[in-house]
Amino acid sequence: MYYHDKRLQYPVTVEKPDPQFARMLQQAIGGVEGEIRVCMQYFFQAWGNRAPTTKYRDMLLHTATEEIGHIEMLATAVALNLDKAPTSLQEEGAADGIVGAVMGGGSAKGAIEGMIHKNLLSAGLAAMPVDSDGVPFNMSHIYASGNVAADMYCNVAAESTGRTLAVRLFNAAHDEGMKKMLHYMIARDTMHQQQWLAVIEELGGHEGNLPIPNSFPQSEEHEKYNYSFFATGVEGSPAPEGRWTSGPSLDGKGVYNVVQNAPMGQEPVLGPARPDSGAQSQQIG
Amino acid sequence: MYYHDKRLQYPVTVEKPDPQFARMLQQAIGGVEGEIRVCMQYFFQAWGNRAPTTKYRDMLLHTATEEIGHIEMLATAVALNLDKAPTSLQEEGAADGIVGAVMGGGSAKGAIEGMIHKNLLSAGLAAMPVDSDGVPFNMSHIYASGNVAADMYCNVAAESTGRTLAVRLFNAAHDEGMKKMLHYMIARDTMHQQQWLAVIEELGGHEGNLPIPNSFPQSEEHEKYNYSFFATGVEGSPAPEGRWTSGPSLDGKGVYNVVQNAPMGQEPVLGPARPDSGAQSQQIG
Amino acid sequence: MYYHDKRLQYPVTVEKPDPQFARMLQQAIGGVEGEIRVCMQYFFQAWGNRAPTTKYRDMLLHTATEEIGHIEMLATAVALNLDKAPTSLQEEGAADGIVGAVMGGGSAKGAIEGMIHKNLLSAGLAAMPVDSDGVPFNMSHIYASGNVAADMYCNVAAESTGRTLAVRLFNAAHDEGMKKMLHYMIARDTMHQQQWLAVIEELGGHEGNLPIPNSFPQSEEHEKYNYSFFATGVEGSPAPEGRWTSGPSLDGKGVYNVVQNAPMGQEPVLGPARPDSGAQSQQIG
Amino acid sequence: MYYHDKRLQYPVTVEKPDPQFARMLQQAIGGVEGEIRVCMQYFFQAWGNRAPTTKYRDMLLHTATEEIGHIEMLATAVALNLDKAPTSLQEEGAADGIVGAVMGGGSAKGAIEGMIHKNLLSAGLAAMPVDSDGVPFNMSHIYASGNVAADMYCNVAAESTGRTLAVRLFNAAHDEGMKKMLHYMIARDTMHQQQWLAVIEELGGHEGNLPIPNSFPQSEEHEKYNYSFFATGVEGSPAPEGRWTSGPSLDGKGVYNVVQNAPMGQEPVLGPARPDSGAQSQQIG
Amino acid sequence: MYYHDKRLQYPVTVEKPDPQFARMLQQAIGGVEGEIRVCMQYFFQAWGNRAPTTKYRDMLLHTATEEIGHIEMLATAVALNLDKAPTSLQEEGAADGIVGAVMGGGSAKGAIEGMIHKNLLSAGLAAMPVDSDGVPFNMSHIYASGNVAADMYCNVAAESTGRTLAVRLFNAAHDEGMKKMLHYMIARDTMHQQQWLAVIEELGGHEGNLPIPNSFPQSEEHEKYNYSFFATGVEGSPAPEGRWTSGPSLDGKGVYNVVQNAPMGQEPVLGPARPDSGAQSQQIG
Amino acid sequence: MYYHDKRLQYPVTVEKPDPQFARMLQQAIGGVEGEIRVCMQYFFQAWGNRAPTTKYRDMLLHTATEEIGHIEMLATAVALNLDKAPTSLQEEGAADGIVGAVMGGGSAKGAIEGMIHKNLLSAGLAAMPVDSDGVPFNMSHIYASGNVAADMYCNVAAESTGRTLAVRLFNAAHDEGMKKMLHYMIARDTMHQQQWLAVIEELGGHEGNLPIPNSFPQSEEHEKYNYSFFATGVEGSPAPEGRWTSGPSLDGKGVYNVVQNAPMGQEPVLGPARPDSGAQSQQIG
Repeated sequence: MYYHDKRLQYPVTVEKPDPQFARMLQQAIGGVEGEIRVCMQYFFQAWGNRAPTTKYRDMLLHTATEEIGHIEMLATAVALNLDKAPTSLQEEGAADGIVGAVMGGGSAKGAIEGMIHKNLLSAGLAAMPVDSDGVPFNMSHIYASGNVAADMYCNVAAESTGRTLAVRLFNAAHDEGMKKMLHYMIARDTMHQQQWLAVIEELGGHEGNLPIPNSFPQSEEHEKYNYSFFATGVEGSPAPEGRWTSGPSLDGKGVYNVVQNAPMGQEPVLGPARPDSGAQSQQIG
Repeated sequence: MYYHDKRLQYPVTVEKPDPQFARMLQQAIGGVEGEIRVCMQYFFQAWGNRAPTTKYRDMLLHTATEEIGHIEMLATAVALNLDKAPTSLQEEGAADGIVGAVMGGGSAKGAIEGMIHKNLLSAGLAAMPVDSDGVPFNMSHIYASGNVAADMYCNVAAESTGRTLAVRLFNAAHDEGMKKMLHYMIARDTMHQQQWLAVIEELGGHEGNLPIPNSFPQSEEHEKYNYSFFATGVEGSPAPEGRWTSGPSLDGKGVYNVVQNAPMGQEPVLGPARPDSGAQSQQIG
Repeated sequence: MYYHDKRLQYPVTVEKPDPQFARMLQQAIGGVEGEIRVCMQYFFQAWGNRAPTTKYRDMLLHTATEEIGHIEMLATAVALNLDKAPTSLQEEGAADGIVGAVMGGGSAKGAIEGMIHKNLLSAGLAAMPVDSDGVPFNMSHIYASGNVAADMYCNVAAESTGRTLAVRLFNAAHDEGMKKMLHYMIARDTMHQQQWLAVIEELGGHEGNLPIPNSFPQSEEHEKYNYSFFATGVEGSPAPEGRWTSGPSLDGKGVYNVVQNAPMGQEPVLGPARPDSGAQSQQIG
Repeated sequence: MYYHDKRLQYPVTVEKPDPQFARMLQQAIGGVEGEIRVCMQYFFQAWGNRAPTTKYRDMLLHTATEEIGHIEMLATAVALNLDKAPTSLQEEGAADGIVGAVMGGGSAKGAIEGMIHKNLLSAGLAAMPVDSDGVPFNMSHIYASGNVAADMYCNVAAESTGRTLAVRLFNAAHDEGMKKMLHYMIARDTMHQQQWLAVIEELGGHEGNLPIPNSFPQSEEHEKYNYSFFATGVEGSPAPEGRWTSGPSLDGKGVYNVVQNAPMGQEPVLGPARPDSGAQSQQIG
Repeated sequence: MYYHDKRLQYPVTVEKPDPQFARMLQQAIGGVEGEIRVCMQYFFQAWGNRAPTTKYRDMLLHTATEEIGHIEMLATAVALNLDKAPTSLQEEGAADGIVGAVMGGGSAKGAIEGMIHKNLLSAGLAAMPVDSDGVPFNMSHIYASGNVAADMYCNVAAESTGRTLAVRLFNAAHDEGMKKMLHYMIARDTMHQQQWLAVIEELGGHEGNLPIPNSFPQSEEHEKYNYSFFATGVEGSPAPEGRWTSGPSLDGKGVYNVVQNAPMGQEPVLGPARPDSGAQSQQIG
Repeated sequence: MYYHDKRLQYPVTVEKPDPQFARMLQQAIGGVEGEIRVCMQYFFQAWGNRAPTTKYRDMLLHTATEEIGHIEMLATAVALNLDKAPTSLQEEGAADGIVGAVMGGGSAKGAIEGMIHKNLLSAGLAAMPVDSDGVPFNMSHIYASGNVAADMYCNVAAESTGRTLAVRLFNAAHDEGMKKMLHYMIARDTMHQQQWLAVIEELGGHEGNLPIPNSFPQSEEHEKYNYSFFATGVEGSPAPEGRWTSGPSLDGKGVYNVVQNAPMGQEPVLGPARPDSGAQSQQIG
């Protein structure tokens, strides 16, 4: 179960509110690489963790709980950036001085054009669980597979795209307070990338974990093609050589090779449609 | 651009059609860890690849193109498993012998209960781009971040959950033709896990790539907290020790440590609402 | 604006309630080929109709308004079919006699297994705007393009898949009341297919409308490839011959021919990533 | 910011695991009236709260934080109910004794038919943020309007549908542990209904809050029709009388009356389409 | 069943078309607090209404039918506001005089930047069932719970957020015709708030309806915690006092009190994963 | 199975990159009338085709494969148009000369305002499978009904809205390379409209195919109303006359006529709610 402290994990300040930057920050809240995603992903991985030990469940709970605080910081930052956003398309609105100062000379109308409209119309100048184009977050992005190694790679993927996003926000930002908040969040993403990879390492690294799931005996898979790069190019599009085309495989259990792809199966023939299936009579034959 | 051969990449046969297994297979078509996802993910990563070399674009195209053939195999398998599915809830339907044989004695009604209803009602006994509960695939799951290392980890995540799914389907299957098809697809997933990790390796492994993105100078991030595990437990919920709580970090650039989480920020105060913002007058003050 | 009569357009009766058939009917309410779709599609086409005459706007309003009554009939049918659905997984529930009679001897548990669970849990045994697998209708399926000919074909498509669905429901049904309701709705779909095609006919048929939009001069399109079937098969997968491979085109403005597809463009090279774009340094070069 | 205790808020035990009940419980996790919804709704209302006092922000944080623990309890309950779920459609699976005991004599195949397939195929027998038909939760259901009275009614709505759901789950349950967990959650929903209505009361009740938003002067709205029930029935469908058709309005600011609806506007004529708008030439005129 | 009159319920006129305001209006059509939502919500509540009387079904039909006319008015308003929207990014487009007048001196390009692009590209300058950021309406927002009191609060919530939206649109508008249309719609929302609350009142108010559902005996819920505010704050974040922390509860059936939240349950232990579940072998133990 | 050539089907060049046009092009990739849709639609129609001949399966594979190359061209065009897009809201960004040239004097901030933000934040200046407002493509738009005639009309609808979109993009474009690419794609859409209609023709045209499905005997449908236009207007809104109100029907099987709509059914009465259904006690009666 859970507790809260009404203070923020790290200071969030905005000197020059910018509704356009509020829009950008929304990606870190409700984007597929945002904080709701990692928060909920770690929670569901923890809550469904099956293992001889509760160690990984425990660890996941610590970090999932940390992430709630990240959503909170970003939601606060969005609200602060919307503080002086225009609410009207009327000329008077554009001329009220406040907007002019905030917008760098732009008009109220221009400022609204760049906003997620729901931030104003649905939320009254506050954050929402939507991405930077106003698309709501969909929880199908919570990957919790029941396989701890697969989950860890899902987490590395989430924190890699997440830190990439945070860096892009940092590069786009002009407010010192925002840069400071982001330089903190980027650091946390650095650690989280390390953290999930460290679990893989602790569990035996590539050799101890691959292929995932490692509980399925490789003798049951098609052993002729499990370390082959399949080339699908026609003449003029040969396969490039790389670490994955020759030499021992990363898991030490095979040797990479290249196979020119070609059909091993037949043309599939499903036959005529059944009379009661709603097909055209021409299909029924 | 692209070409096709009307034959399948690998044989797909079904001796005992089972609409319930057809439903399961749909997860591998339209599930978030299914083949449409990897196919489209590799294509969009290829088409948007920015780099001094076209090598990774090329390689991605080979594998993306291979994956179209995987969707095709699975769609064929779904159609074949639906071959003798019931189309009626009437008693006569249940008694027609065909269903009885297929269903192992179950009723037509029982068989339909377990089906994705759209497989019958929308598709006329064929595959659809939906998951095993009938939810359509949503292309927000195509991760192509513009960062090659982040993309590779997204791909490892996709192939790890994908092979986990294929193994679960193999374990659930009873038809030899289906097991054979899956033992081939599991082998391909093995290779694809190796392939994407090999790109990371070729690019310098953990040290050459972490933290992702590595183009952002770490001196700009909050260097006090970038290798710290944040413990959020109250008394009685201490942080478990692991590879990620002490010792050198995986990227060789820091030392893991543990920090008990505590607020560094203030209570955020957004102040009263603006008069023109649609708030209650009690909020405006 | 709109009015209602509290009576139904056509009688809806159910003698033997069947929650499994309720599930099937949901496809006709909230499926992509269902009645909410056509109702809203015709309304939005009407409301946005731009033309020298209001004739098509008018006509669309008549049929859109009719369709509200179809949703109403189906929603009523779903509620009636859920009348004796089980609400409990307990053994006593299974033994209460009512369920036994309704379910043809099956258990309450078995009956629930086949239901859209939200019909019970979210709606208290009533219809919902979801499809037969419980997926909510998404209004992106409302096609109203601003081009009247394109819209008419969208409508023909909707009524063709719609009547196909209604026929499948009729084939699956066992209750005489349900068959009667559906035999009425199938008749209406017959007319609606005729109706939208008649608009095309009235506007000049193939020659008067193709290619859509016909307001764009064909001299501006690539006139070498606008009546060519592109064959993409490799050796062994030649293009089948048909009405579309030779002879005059349907619009009378060209001659069909076959072209073996081949790249006319170059390999696209996007070049290195920009330093500020969140890419890996290996991509920046 | 946030903390956790690894123990649950209230005991969660399952004596007789039932994958079918696991499916039902999913509605309380990922359904639109479930716990993710209220948890996130209260958080976003808190984080965006603009008012002269932080009192309501504070209060919302307490309850939002409580709700995380509710999701956790339900996710645990789902996992426990999936403990002995079948993973195979093979006959041997059906005969393994475990399933037979769990399923009350049903077959493994029958048991799987009733399950959310993703609970097995995507999550490895654990909870997911999806509803009882496997549809992922969509964060567009997080209502946080920036108007505190509107928000409170959104919360009452959420807790009313939420407690209705919990009661339905209680009625369907057969396991004593599950009934106990639910009797606790139902009690909490009782309180939360009271809590949000109490805020309305504290802010002045109907008279102090209606119409919402009360910051818009009613003199600006069309005062002829703001307390009128509009009857849209044709002959034979008159409007029923009720508290809302006569007498003083609830807010004490008007008198209810009935108006037979009739068009006050004109037939809208949008005119011909523009030549460059992709319309048919017949629309351009 | 239903009828229409081709005239509008209330006049809709636009003197100065503004594509940016068209975008805003889309929220009132396809937003979660918009008119499609209330229209469909009232219809589904009516069609599924189970009660000893048809009174509430009847009443809901009157208002649902009224709401179709509101969608129609808004769709007309959107089309009229798009009348002179730019269709081209070319310089000539910007200079054509028409746009300049409409846009207040802005460029065509600037005008398009602020538009929902689908209004032009998919609809040919007409309304769509999408919100103000172009996100399609999703019918999961149709709340019809089968519990009349829960439904009424859902309706109050819808009309409260709906009127808040309408007020924000009024505040943003600059065209007199638009302000007039909105001042009418705001009045209707005022009534609809009153209407749904009046149903609650007629049914017995707080005491007669709470807790919802009132058909579940409160003796079955955990009576120790059903009127307790749970405080989840750590030291420094105490619970604020309010109407909900002491005194008699609103339903007159309990006394409010405050409980400091603490775990009553145990740490959940799911145990090792099953060998056939696709887990890592390290999880199987 | 499938092959690729790394060269494009047709040249894609951009002289003056324009991030605003990149946004527009996204509609042709991830819009409901875009290329992912037709590509996947033709594939699923092919893979599920049941007929006495594989001819239509074959033909569909040719065109589906062609369409992959169209997505590729558009994705390349989006990336090229994003080449010089701004990545920063800082003043220095606006002043860097590059943006100024690209934007026609506009500011970096203004340019970003008009962009799909995910093109920058999620994809690093590359294409995504989203529409022109950033909404991800949803695969529920893949219509493959199992009825070949219904499918063909779905395809005509897709290519009609698709060519309408392409024409709108052509009209909006200012770059010669983009116009050239589009003039090629418009030509292909011309052919594809012809192609799907030619299948209908080959199968017997209106008489040979209508009503769809033609395998259902019309004697089973309500023969009194299957060629009747239902008028739903009240006095003042009569039905307009047209090809569909009198004369022989298009399929030669009936005669059009007009019927004034009126209720043939009764007022539906669902009766009181069941005690265990979570209703209010007032509904149970």
